[in-house]
Amino acid sequence: MQDKPVEESIDVKKIAIRTPGFSGADLANLVNEAAILAARNDKKVVSEQDFLESVEKVLLGPERRSRVITDKERKITAYHEAGHALVAASLEGSDPVHKVSIISRGFAGGYTLKLPIEETNLKTRSQFLTDLATMMGGYAAEKIIFGEMSTGASNDLKQASSLARKLVTKYGMSEKLGPVAYGGDNDMVFLGRDITSNKNYSEDVAAKIDAEVKAFIIRAYETAKKVLEDRKDVLQAVTDALLQKEVLEQEEFYGILEPFQLNKLAV
Amino acid sequence: MQDKPVEESIDVKKIAIRTPGFSGADLANLVNEAAILAARNDKKVVSEQDFLESVEKVLLGPERRSRVITDKERKITAYHEAGHALVAASLEGSDPVHKVSIISRGFAGGYTLKLPIEETNLKTRSQFLTDLATMMGGYAAEKIIFGEMSTGASNDLKQASSLARKLVTKYGMSEKLGPVAYGGDNDMVFLGRDITSNKNYSEDVAAKIDAEVKAFIIRAYETAKKVLEDRKDVLQAVTDALLQKEVLEQEEFYGILEPFQLNKLAV
Amino acid sequence: MQDKPVEESIDVKKIAIRTPGFSGADLANLVNEAAILAARNDKKVVSEQDFLESVEKVLLGPERRSRVITDKERKITAYHEAGHALVAASLEGSDPVHKVSIISRGFAGGYTLKLPIEETNLKTRSQFLTDLATMMGGYAAEKIIFGEMSTGASNDLKQASSLARKLVTKYGMSEKLGPVAYGGDNDMVFLGRDITSNKNYSEDVAAKIDAEVKAFIIRAYETAKKVLEDRKDVLQAVTDALLQKEVLEQEEFYGILEPFQLNKLAV
Amino acid sequence: MQDKPVEESIDVKKIAIRTPGFSGADLANLVNEAAILAARNDKKVVSEQDFLESVEKVLLGPERRSRVITDKERKITAYHEAGHALVAASLEGSDPVHKVSIISRGFAGGYTLKLPIEETNLKTRSQFLTDLATMMGGYAAEKIIFGEMSTGASNDLKQASSLARKLVTKYGMSEKLGPVAYGGDNDMVFLGRDITSNKNYSEDVAAKIDAEVKAFIIRAYETAKKVLEDRKDVLQAVTDALLQKEVLEQEEFYGILEPFQLNKLAV
Amino acid sequence: MQDKPVEESIDVKKIAIRTPGFSGADLANLVNEAAILAARNDKKVVSEQDFLESVEKVLLGPERRSRVITDKERKITAYHEAGHALVAASLEGSDPVHKVSIISRGFAGGYTLKLPIEETNLKTRSQFLTDLATMMGGYAAEKIIFGEMSTGASNDLKQASSLARKLVTKYGMSEKLGPVAYGGDNDMVFLGRDITSNKNYSEDVAAKIDAEVKAFIIRAYETAKKVLEDRKDVLQAVTDALLQKEVLEQEEFYGILEPFQLNKLAV
Amino acid sequence: MQDKPVEESIDVKKIAIRTPGFSGADLANLVNEAAILAARNDKKVVSEQDFLESVEKVLLGPERRSRVITDKERKITAYHEAGHALVAASLEGSDPVHKVSIISRGFAGGYTLKLPIEETNLKTRSQFLTDLATMMGGYAAEKIIFGEMSTGASNDLKQASSLARKLVTKYGMSEKLGPVAYGGDNDMVFLGRDITSNKNYSEDVAAKIDAEVKAFIIRAYETAKKVLEDRKDVLQAVTDALLQKEVLEQEEFYGILEPFQLNKLAV
Repeated sequence: MQDKPVEESIDVKKIAIRTPGFSGADLANLVNEAAILAARNDKKVVSEQDFLESVEKVLLGPERRSRVITDKERKITAYHEAGHALVAASLEGSDPVHKVSIISRGFAGGYTLKLPIEETNLKTRSQFLTDLATMMGGYAAEKIIFGEMSTGASNDLKQASSLARKLVTKYGMSEKLGPVAYGGDNDMVFLGRDITSNKNYSEDVAAKIDAEVKAFIIRAYETAKKVLEDRKDVLQAVTDALLQKEVLEQEEFYGILEPFQLNKLAV
Repeated sequence: MQDKPVEESIDVKKIAIRTPGFSGADLANLVNEAAILAARNDKKVVSEQDFLESVEKVLLGPERRSRVITDKERKITAYHEAGHALVAASLEGSDPVHKVSIISRGFAGGYTLKLPIEETNLKTRSQFLTDLATMMGGYAAEKIIFGEMSTGASNDLKQASSLARKLVTKYGMSEKLGPVAYGGDNDMVFLGRDITSNKNYSEDVAAKIDAEVKAFIIRAYETAKKVLEDRKDVLQAVTDALLQKEVLEQEEFYGILEPFQLNKLAV
Repeated sequence: MQDKPVEESIDVKKIAIRTPGFSGADLANLVNEAAILAARNDKKVVSEQDFLESVEKVLLGPERRSRVITDKERKITAYHEAGHALVAASLEGSDPVHKVSIISRGFAGGYTLKLPIEETNLKTRSQFLTDLATMMGGYAAEKIIFGEMSTGASNDLKQASSLARKLVTKYGMSEKLGPVAYGGDNDMVFLGRDITSNKNYSEDVAAKIDAEVKAFIIRAYETAKKVLEDRKDVLQAVTDALLQKEVLEQEEFYGILEPFQLNKLAV
Repeated sequence: MQDKPVEESIDVKKIAIRTPGFSGADLANLVNEAAILAARNDKKVVSEQDFLESVEKVLLGPERRSRVITDKERKITAYHEAGHALVAASLEGSDPVHKVSIISRGFAGGYTLKLPIEETNLKTRSQFLTDLATMMGGYAAEKIIFGEMSTGASNDLKQASSLARKLVTKYGMSEKLGPVAYGGDNDMVFLGRDITSNKNYSEDVAAKIDAEVKAFIIRAYETAKKVLEDRKDVLQAVTDALLQKEVLEQEEFYGILEPFQLNKLAV
Repeated sequence: MQDKPVEESIDVKKIAIRTPGFSGADLANLVNEAAILAARNDKKVVSEQDFLESVEKVLLGPERRSRVITDKERKITAYHEAGHALVAASLEGSDPVHKVSIISRGFAGGYTLKLPIEETNLKTRSQFLTDLATMMGGYAAEKIIFGEMSTGASNDLKQASSLARKLVTKYGMSEKLGPVAYGGDNDMVFLGRDITSNKNYSEDVAAKIDAEVKAFIIRAYETAKKVLEDRKDVLQAVTDALLQKEVLEQEEFYGILEPFQLNKLAV
Repeated sequence: MQDKPVEESIDVKKIAIRTPGFSGADLANLVNEAAILAARNDKKVVSEQDFLESVEKVLLGPERRSRVITDKERKITAYHEAGHALVAASLEGSDPVHKVSIISRGFAGGYTLKLPIEETNLKTRSQFLTDLATMMGGYAAEKIIFGEMSTGASNDLKQASSLARKLVTKYGMSEKLGPVAYGGDNDMVFLGRDITSNKNYSEDVAAKIDAEVKAFIIRAYETAKKVLEDRKDVLQAVTDALLQKEVLEQEEFYGILEPFQLNKLAV
């Protein structure tokens, strides 16, 4: 931040909490975006708010307010994001929800921003189970409300499937496959991209891995579905607020939850 | 459109509705083709009609009126396109039919132009089921009328199979496979083309995916067949009109349907 | 043909009928070959006959009269070509036979020239069944007459197998596989050649495809065999004529068939 | 031969019979080798004998008389070559044996030269069965005489297996696989060599092909074994002559067979 | 070490014991790092201590004291490393523990340094079983104490799985697979990386190899678990010391173990 | 040898016997190494002894007397090499043992030098069975004496497995697979290395090949084990001599065997 005129009162730690896993390049990008934002608003110095707003731009791409969104789409997106946020807020050990939004950004129709209380290097099996259930919260909400799912869950399914596969093949967290690592990281990079994930195991093991990956996902989905069905009124309240305000900051979100006096559930 | 002399009365929105999913390059191409068309007709300004006619050229390629078409072929094509159009017009949630044509364009013997009422970013499972049934309408019509199918359905089958595969592997819309994403988008581009779709799952799952893809297609085909068998007289009426006029614009098409007082069917 | 001195009386349509599917380059090649042929015969203008003779050269390569052919080979080739021609002439919907020859050309020991009455873009399932049976006519004739087959059928088997595979995987013409497209056309071209046909389906489906391909071929073979066994005397008559004259033009061929008063058979 | 001084009395046809399948380059090589041979013997003109001797050099490589061969090896080679020759001479439709030799040439310890009576382009199934049995004659002879086989049969097995695979996959000569062609010739040539034989069929068919290939080889082996066991005294006579003379020309070989008055056996 | 000013009293052998398997480049790197360390401390000569401290830097990367570690993480890491160290100290034939540390280095959260008493070239099956059990000690400790495992064991699982695979496929140490070597070392290096481990065996054998690899890992895990459950009080003592001191040198570690009078267990 | 001053009394044949399969380059290398050895000993001419000593260096790499070897390793190596040598000396048809050594050379901890009495080009099945049993002699000796095996047998297993695979797939020496050749030698060389061994057979055959390879190895191991168990006292005597002298030349080795009056055993 040294080359840019930055407001003195800025709380760097607050920014750091919102940028876990950011690389040096990501941070440089962030400072840049914040400076551009300040300049666009004819400000001489970059404020904390400029930084916080730019985080989302760096993470998800620019806002796309101009995109035409049908009422049906808006409703699906609201239930979807409310699903993510409510599952996250309901499960023990989940990171707190910092923001829920149904403003389209980059490729996403909406997003729910969870940030860890402490930046962590080790993750336990139960933390992963919580993460998986939260990822499935959007899909589960659509299924509960509309009886079917939309293409909006496609990215969630991809991330959840990829994570579940790691639990099974890399972290030894499946009872059935046991503490054995499958595959390797000696993937070949060919003209800049991976050719193959180097499947060094038999079809028999491949089938067992698939079955365990599915089991992890199904379990996460069932958890999310149960949470949302049991707390359908809360889901409705969050969705209504989202449809009205488009963005719920952390305090607003937890403010909606407060009257329901929700206790944390084990995953 | 700035560099070209365009008729003032032009309704840009009408053109926009007919060009969903058009990229900037496609639109530039469209403006060009319209200008060429106007020039060919010795017009100084480009009219709305020039734009609308050029849309199809950009989408499907130039008209091929010179191509010799046998009577048998013409008849097959007419039933085929009437099949697409009638299934689309019969199912709930389908996009309206804008045009049905049996004039050969590019590689296609005929075509049915459906356009969404609203441009949509999210698609639901039931919308896809409607799309699949509409895609299978041509194949079903041939089977019903001629007792067999021709090579004319080959492109429909390819599109429908590809879409059904996405429902199963990307959108988690198959009950049997569940909300798991299979395959990845880390396909390698090698000398400008994909090498492999990165099959990272077992043969066991591959067989289940194939079975579900087939199930989606068969279901769509059965839906289309049922619609067309129940409304065989309407199919005949549309086909007769097509054989006579070659092209049916939206109003003409729905005009033929009107006397039958068709109600919309759930997919 | 503009640059070459061409006989005025020439019937371009007659040439066009014999050159279905010819590309511009093929046609240019044809004009060239005809001019060469005329020049070789010290003719100033290119005659219709020069064109017709050159068609076969462009299609199959130059005549190879110098090749030493044993009597046994000549006999096998004659029955083989007579088999193709008789099956084609016997089945409903088959294209008429224009020429049957046992003069060696390019890699082929003999050939049977079928040309469609009308150039067609769409092909139906029954037309393909007729084509397949005609392709198997040579193999069937050898089996009937000699009790075994020779290497002469190898190219027929390859073409028939490739066509049957398309019926199953591309045109949805197999009852068992249904209207699903398998494989794709996103084959990679690597250094100018295809690497793989991009098998995107499971072993289970691969086995079913193989079984259906075989079923189509076996059915075509049975059809051809039945035709030739029922009309063995006609087969003998055509073969005798071929052994004597080497080439049978359309009229000659149908002249041999006339006394037998053959009716067309459904495939 | 135009550039070289060739003996006038030379019988070109005799040379042609010994060089079936020779390409232009092979023939040029032959003329060269014959000229070298003549020059080495201080002859001004190239004789017929020079040509005939050079044929084998071009086919199999130079003689390797200097190679140390143990008595055991010599004996194995003699029975092996006698086995090939006797099976060839015993089966109907086999090409006549022109020469049997146990002089090491190139990579081969010995060789048996069969040449077709007439150069043939078409080959029938029974001719292939005869060829296969002849190929297995060496292996069978070793098994009968020594109760085990040596590495000397390795090249025969490779050729026979490759031929049997063609009968099954290319010529439709297996009852079980039927008249279907498997695999293709669109193999990719990569840096000058084939990458893959383009297995476009299922594991199921692959297993059936393997079983049929094995069945053809086993049948050929059984045929060869039966011939050699029934004519063990002839095998011994040919072997004895080979061990004594090292090379048996056509007349010598058939001279040894004459007293046994062998009749031809069906394959 | 010749170019650097090194303390005379230095015991090269002591350094050698800590650097088994170091290549020339590794050793050069070590000397460099030690010189840098000495320079940083304003020392003119490099001391023994400089060398010993640099060994770990070369092996594992630089210390990362600045990394924020949560209390939970620190606790997991301490039990994990204590698990490795206690299993190593409990099993017959294991190398002595030289150091246990929970200071983060490179990618590792902590580490346990075992060094062989004698540098050995041959390794026996029982030595490998001991190594495998020691590798699983961290995972087992986490399971015992926390009832679940974290991502911290991921590298252990990878190393153990890779070693177990070698026992089965390279050293013939599995009863079920027997003394057969599978795979080869003719792996292709393509643009500097391995493409494939050249699986030259059948799926059937691949499945058996997977089963044996898993059996070796499970056995090692059971061994480690039994050791740690039986000696839970020792595990606690070592963990407590680690949490307090962060690093336990060899004497400290064995000092903690002494009062428990542990006897060595057979693997 | 022409460019080097060589002792006149040298017996070239004796050198030739020890260098079977040496290529021209290997021989040139040998002459070089012998000259270096002579020069190092300040000799003007190269003696026979220089040549014989250099043979091993060319075959196995330089002696590595400096390598630290533990007593356990030395003992394992001695039993291992004694196992190879005793099995070789016990079986009919095995090549005579020229030298047994436990001096480390190149990558090998020890070696047993067998040389054929006569250089042979053909090898029979029984010779291979003898070779396989000899290869397994070291592994068997370790199993008998120590009850387990070490990494020292890894290269033996690789060679034996590779040879057994050739017996099955190339030489038709397996009863179950029969006289069929599997795989081909049209392996692609890509950037100087093989990509694949071109598996052109089905999984079914692959599994059978694996089973037969294992059967050959197990049989060889059982043979070796039986020999060594029956002659355990001889194994002990050879091992004791090896541990004492490090190298046993041919006469010494057979001298140790003499008092036991061993008869040759059939494989």
